[in-house]
Amino acid sequence: MEKIVKQALLFDFYGELLTEHQKKVYYDVISEDMSYSEIAEEYNISRQGVFDLVRRCDKILLDYEEKLHLIDKFSKAKENIKDISEITAALKVKNSDPELTEMIEKVEKRLDEIIEDF
Amino acid sequence: MEKIVKQALLFDFYGELLTEHQKKVYYDVISEDMSYSEIAEEYNISRQGVFDLVRRCDKILLDYEEKLHLIDKFSKAKENIKDISEITAALKVKNSDPELTEMIEKVEKRLDEIIEDF
Repeated sequence: MEKIVKQALLFDFYGELLTEHQKKVYYDVISEDMSYSEIAEEYNISRQGVFDLVRRCDKILLDYEEKLHLIDKFSKAKENIKDISEITAALKVKNSDPELTEMIEKVEKRLDEIIEDF
Repeated sequence: MEKIVKQALLFDFYGELLTEHQKKVYYDVISEDMSYSEIAEEYNISRQGVFDLVRRCDKILLDYEEKLHLIDKFSKAKENIKDISEITAALKVKNSDPELTEMIEKVEKRLDEIIEDF
């Protein structure tokens, strides 16, 4: 996985466990809207300070993933939900019974709710 | 929610973030196979020590839930998955097209995988 994508995922799952300062700086780095120099200036720290903070946060976030495996679990669940959505869509096309269609639409509604919550 | 059920859920989600010692004692308390006195003796600590450890772990685990809301998210997803399973089972009964049945069974397989991963 590309490093920045991995960092964004880790931040998405465990970012709340960082300090406010770490959260802000790390977010600015992974959102890639600002250069390291700009971020350093923004927070009044050195460029090396930004690098060190990112390395430290990477380690903190990875440690949480190694213990909780949330990204792993959610990724697998998401793939299965995607598969179910595709099969459900195909079921709806193939089926011609209005009663079954209504039931399939209920499944679609629940799937949307799961995806929203994730 | 009953306290012991809530503690078991918290432990299930965040137990890996406790120290080895906390994990062992807390697990013995919530599994309810041993009395506080027996646990105290087992770990060579006072009964009050067990109480204090449980209170401290309750707080640690609740703090994680307040930040990550995993129990909340997973509970909602589980309810939706349960609903989908029920609708899928009813769909299978009402449907008489073997092609659709095969697709419904694929959905069932994916649902089982999600439940296993959770």
